[in-house]
Parts: sequence; structure tokens; C-alpha cells
Amino acid sequence: MNSLRRVLVSPSFNSPVRFTSTTTDGSPKPKTGILMLNMGGPRNSEEVKQFLTNLFADRDIIRLPVQNKLGPWIANRRTPSIIEKYNEIGGGSPIYDWTSKQGALMCAKLDQLCPESAPHKAYVGFRYAKPTTEEALEQIEEDGVEHVVAFSQYPQYSCTTSGSSMKAIYRYFQQNYPLKTPGPTGDGVTWSVIDRWPTHPLLIKTFAQNIMKELDTFPEHIRSQVVLLFSAHSVPQYVMNRGDPYPAEMGATVQLVMQELGWCNPYRLVWQSKVGPLPWLEPGTENTIKAMVKKGQKNLMLIPIAFVNDHIETLHELDIEYAQDLGKEVGAERIGRCAAPNCDPTFIDCLADLVSTHLKSGETVKPQMLMTCPMCTEESCKDAKMWWSKATGYLEKQQKVASSA
Amino acid sequence: MNSLRRVLVSPSFNSPVRFTSTTTDGSPKPKTGILMLNMGGPRNSEEVKQFLTNLFADRDIIRLPVQNKLGPWIANRRTPSIIEKYNEIGGGSPIYDWTSKQGALMCAKLDQLCPESAPHKAYVGFRYAKPTTEEALEQIEEDGVEHVVAFSQYPQYSCTTSGSSMKAIYRYFQQNYPLKTPGPTGDGVTWSVIDRWPTHPLLIKTFAQNIMKELDTFPEHIRSQVVLLFSAHSVPQYVMNRGDPYPAEMGATVQLVMQELGWCNPYRLVWQSKVGPLPWLEPGTENTIKAMVKKGQKNLMLIPIAFVNDHIETLHELDIEYAQDLGKEVGAERIGRCAAPNCDPTFIDCLADLVSTHLKSGETVKPQMLMTCPMCTEESCKDAKMWWSKATGYLEKQQKVASSA
Repeated sequence: MNSLRRVLVSPSFNSPVRFTSTTTDGSPKPKTGILMLNMGGPRNSEEVKQFLTNLFADRDIIRLPVQNKLGPWIANRRTPSIIEKYNEIGGGSPIYDWTSKQGALMCAKLDQLCPESAPHKAYVGFRYAKPTTEEALEQIEEDGVEHVVAFSQYPQYSCTTSGSSMKAIYRYFQQNYPLKTPGPTGDGVTWSVIDRWPTHPLLIKTFAQNIMKELDTFPEHIRSQVVLLFSAHSVPQYVMNRGDPYPAEMGATVQLVMQELGWCNPYRLVWQSKVGPLPWLEPGTENTIKAMVKKGQKNLMLIPIAFVNDHIETLHELDIEYAQDLGKEVGAERIGRCAAPNCDPTFIDCLADLVSTHLKSGETVKPQMLMTCPMCTEESCKDAKMWWSKATGYLEKQQKVASSA
Repeated sequence: MNSLRRVLVSPSFNSPVRFTSTTTDGSPKPKTGILMLNMGGPRNSEEVKQFLTNLFADRDIIRLPVQNKLGPWIANRRTPSIIEKYNEIGGGSPIYDWTSKQGALMCAKLDQLCPESAPHKAYVGFRYAKPTTEEALEQIEEDGVEHVVAFSQYPQYSCTTSGSSMKAIYRYFQQNYPLKTPGPTGDGVTWSVIDRWPTHPLLIKTFAQNIMKELDTFPEHIRSQVVLLFSAHSVPQYVMNRGDPYPAEMGATVQLVMQELGWCNPYRLVWQSKVGPLPWLEPGTENTIKAMVKKGQKNLMLIPIAFVNDHIETLHELDIEYAQDLGKEVGAERIGRCAAPNCDPTFIDCLADLVSTHLKSGETVKPQMLMTCPMCTEESCKDAKMWWSKATGYLEKQQKVASSA
């Protein structure tokens, strides 16, 4: 559990934060836990292999034949080249540091905004890296939290990302407490979910401000011609074809950011990080850069619209592989990169507003999260969603409405 | 030009409207023309063949080998079955009536909102039916309009729809005035463009209100479980892969409508009207209905999110083929259908607000419309966009900025 304690005491964290929510230093016991869910990343070279092994074992994000054999084999084979990439960006992923800082800053705000649910404590729950979702859940139990908010740190929902984290929580409870579901009729600990927030005004404002800042670094006479490339992590076409909401929600974020900017520049939504031979969402970021420069659009800006923290896909793929190496190769004048939200004060306000509005409204879960994709045939998706509809008290409410008819 | 006159004097139109903008009845000469662009539809059986012939000739929407031979052949072969469908919905498409009514109501509001650009006159310019875009442009010339707003009636932009209309305008001028471009440095008639409005608050409100009204027709105890299926016209996957903005903008409209509704029900964006053997956007509306009902979701609502008027795709495909016939076949309890905006007062306010805000801001064109899709290799797209950048005065402005650097 040591890794979890570090959530609130990040060594590189300089801003003053009130650690009202830790339990070991004499501060009050947390009443409300905010479980910040994300895929995570290896903090150092030693963690790369385990991270990749976990990633390639997750059938929600990658499907392989004989996955339990082929997954570890691929992970093993890729480890050296991925370690090399992490070495080029300082040795590890900063996602843990950023998430823990965001959580601490958010909780400090929440304690002021929502005294009725205070003290609040943030728990980092990563899908493929330490601290894992399971470790976070153990710590939440140990702390005796009364209410838990499962808070996806992906603004746009995909079954391959947020959905995978929601399933990890379901599986933890299934394995450890197969006979009881948390929630109002269960063990007394109540659960609620913030599963998506692609249109939150402060998320939009954060990106718009960061784009304006980056635009200002281009010479004035070409500023209005810079093409804004909103680059999101791609996903396989088959995921989309079964009805995954991810591309639609990404489109929403992009449109609203452009609206906030007064549609000042040309732009496109493009997709990065495709792997393997199957068709994924197109057009790809790399091919788009090549095509745009060939057409004479030599000033571009890359905007990482799908993640709220810097990670290898921004610091290495966007900054080194595309902005630097590819830009030089194809003869771009300049490829800028918009900052990720990280600990931008507007973004911290966004996180705090999302959770405080959620807590005050008494919302437990949006019906959208409880419905499987139209073409989904995965039993585990159906089971996970049924579990969540019980854990959040949604099913019970529905049954009451039905029986009163 | 008789067809154009009918734009403002629709026989089935009962609301009182001030026809301030016609020129033949003694009312003042229009100062500002609002060219309402859409694909159109045949008003009666006689127009079906020509409509289909025009549609299958447009390489922006359909690509066929030896298109000038195969297009008319397909159009001819399809005519009888399409006539039959139109007969089932009253003999023809109501899109002309709706668009002309919307235009008249909008202009009445504009004359009040924007006295400085009054009188305003709406012109209907259809891509495949009468009155055609070319006929509308002739009438605009004849009327001696000073400023023209090219106003796409598709809220979400696709090169296959709005883009095709913009290209038709470019082609009309190229063919008739190959040596001059309209605009500030041309013939004195100025042009501006409203090319997309997927996030306009009053568009969102119109859909949200209509959804609420339709939800109210479901029994209370199942109301919150009705699955909202936002059904948009599909497009071929290759169109998306070259970077067409359509699916992203559709996603934006859907998210904002759900936000306005407080995320009250589960929902999905699905795609209708696929033709031919190539892959198109998925999941399809028909297959989604089948899958949802099979999973036990027996109450559904279809929401035509991509068009602002009723037409064959709502009145026949959604209402008859899916809600009625398919619903019965698969054992749905009830498949409702949300009303199209048509002449809903909130929607008329939306149209008037879009144009008045546009006129008052002095906006001419959004840079987005002037950029070709990243993977587009079509010379005609490049040429059309260059023409628009001249016609709207955008190019001249850019050149001034560049030369002052």
C-alpha cells in the first residue's frame, strides 16, 4: 500500500496542499473517496515489462488469439524498445505524478466546496501500472470510506479504456465478495460514477486556453493559417462498429473547443498510435502530417485531446516522433504541440466542479453507462453493467418505478 | 423561375408571414439573399427520375465506374421502387415546402433583428431537385441582391452534402463567369457562408424538446428505459478515412442534446440509409434495432439528427420500414420517432439567430471550410475552396496580413 500513500505526497509536488484526507498522519478519516481511474504508465524501466504484460492481457483493449500465451510473448518482445522510448523522455511515465497531484489539488477544493461530504481523499487506480485499481480498492476498504466516486480520467468514454477500468472494479468485487454487491442494500458503502465528461465547459476552456498560448508562439502573419490537428488515441474499427461511443464524444470535445476559439483556424480530428494490421480509425496523425505539409500547410499544431496528462503518446509520439523527426523529414516549417491539461488551474477547477456537482446532485450513474454497445456480444460486459446497476442503486430504483406502475 | 416564387408562397402555409422580400408584388427589392442549400427531394412522381439522375451523377456523393453511363442506368432502374415509396408518404417529398416555410419565417424575423441588412429574401437552392442551386443563383442575380449568405441546411458538414452544394455554386460561376469571381474585388456582390452549426444552442434545444415530447408518449414506468437512437444518414467509410468532419460533428450534436436532457436515458449514434457493397459508417440503424430488441430493450426512439426537415428517410425509412415493419417483425414493444425540426418555433429562432449573428459579426467564412480534407486528392475540391477563399474576401485578407509582416 506504500505506493498508494504516495498519491498524496508526491516528491516533485511543490504547491501547498492540505492533506486533510490521509489517515496515517493524524488527519481525519476520509468520508468520500474519489477513485481516479486511468490506464497508467510505468514509472521506471523496471515497470515496463509488467505494464505491457498487463496491457496485452486485457481483452477489453486488445484481442489476440491464445491471448494468455501470445500477450506475454509480445509484451516481452516489445519491452526493450519501449524502455528506450521512456529513456528518451526522462526514464518513465509522468502519469502517476500528474494524477496524484491533480487528485490532491482537487480534494483540497472539494473539502471547501462540499463540506457535507468532506474529508475527501483521492485514490489513483491504474489499469496496467502501480498503483493498480485493485490496490486502490484495498486501500479504500482499509480507510473505511463511506462513499466512493469512480471517476474516469478519460473525458471521452470507450469500452476499451473507461469501460475496462469499470470492469476491473466489478471483477475485484466478484472475486473478493462474490455474494455481496456494495451499495445501499449491500455493505453500506455507497458508490457512484462519473464515467464521461467530454463537454464540460472547463475542460473545453482548458484546451482552448492552451491552444491560444501555443498559437501565440507562431509568427503573427502565419498564425491564422496554422492547422490545428486534434490527435486522439485511435481504436480498432471493429470496436467502433459495435457502437462504442468514443469517436462521437471525441467529436463533441473538438467542436466545443473550436466554438470556444471562435473557429479561428482550420482543424481536423485525427487518430494516433495505431498498432497491428487491423483497420483502425482514420485518418492517422502521421499520414495527415505528411499530406498536409505536401499540400503546403507547413505550420501545424498537435493537440492531445483524449488524455488529460502528459504520457508517452504526447512526450514521445507527438513531440519527438511527429513534431521533431517527421516534421524535419517532410519539410514542415513548424509543428507545435498544445500542452496537456496536467495541473493547469482551470483544469483543476474542472475536476473539482465535476465531482462537486456530481456529489451535490445526488447523481449515482448515467443510464448510458449501464447499456452495452448495440453489437456487443461480450458476456463480461453485460455482467459488469448489471453489477454496476446494482452497486449504484440504479436497478433498485427502476424496480420501484416499475412496481408502482 | 416560377418554382422560386413558390419559395415564399407555399400553398400549404397557414401562418401569417410578411413577404417583404419578393420583388414582383410591389414590396421592396431584397438587399440580402439567404441561399438555403440542401439536397432537396422530388415533389411528385414525375420528378423522381430526374432527382435520381442528378443524385447518381454527383461524384461528391457517389462514385461509380463510368458514372455518366452507370449513373443514369441505376437511376432509371430505381425509379419505379422509389416512386412507390413516395406514394406511401403522400406522393412526394415535403422538403421543398418545409424549406420555403422556414425561409419565409426566418426572413420575417431577420427583417426585425437586422434592419441594416433588410429586406432579406430566402432562396431555396437544391442540389438534385427543383428549384436547383443554379436556378436560385439566376434569381438572385435577377433580383440584384447586394449580399448573399450561402447557408447550408445540413447542421453537420460533410463534403458529400454541404460540400457538394458549395461546389455547385463555384461551378455555376466558373461556367457563367470564368473570368470574374464575386466578392469585394469582383462584381460588387459580396458573399459569406454559414457552412456548419452542429452545436447551436437553439438547434440543441429544438431536438431536446422534441425528444421530451416523444418520451412523454411512453408509459411512465418504462420512460427512463427507452433507448434513444440518434439516427444519421451514413456515408462510405472511405469518405471518413480521408478526413471528412461529418461523424465528429454529428457526435457533437448528440452529446449536447443529451447534456441538455441531463443524460436522462441511454442512447447511441447509429447510421441509416447505407447503399451498395462498400463499407459505410457502423453500426447501422436497422441492425441496431434488431440487436437491441433481442437484448430485451423493447422500447426505442428514433431521432433524425442529421436533417432538419421531414423527408423520405424519416417518413418512410424510419417511420414505415423501421418503427412499423421492422418493429413488428422483431417484436419491439414500441419504436417511437422524434419529430424533425420542420417549422418548430424554437428552430425558426435558431435559423434567424444563426443568420443575424453571422451578419452582425461581419464573419465571411470559417477557415475550416477552406481547407480540403487531409487525404483528399480531388482537384475540384481544391479549386472550389480556392474560389470560395476569393469570393468571401478571405484570401485578400490573408495576403494583406502576410505582406504587412
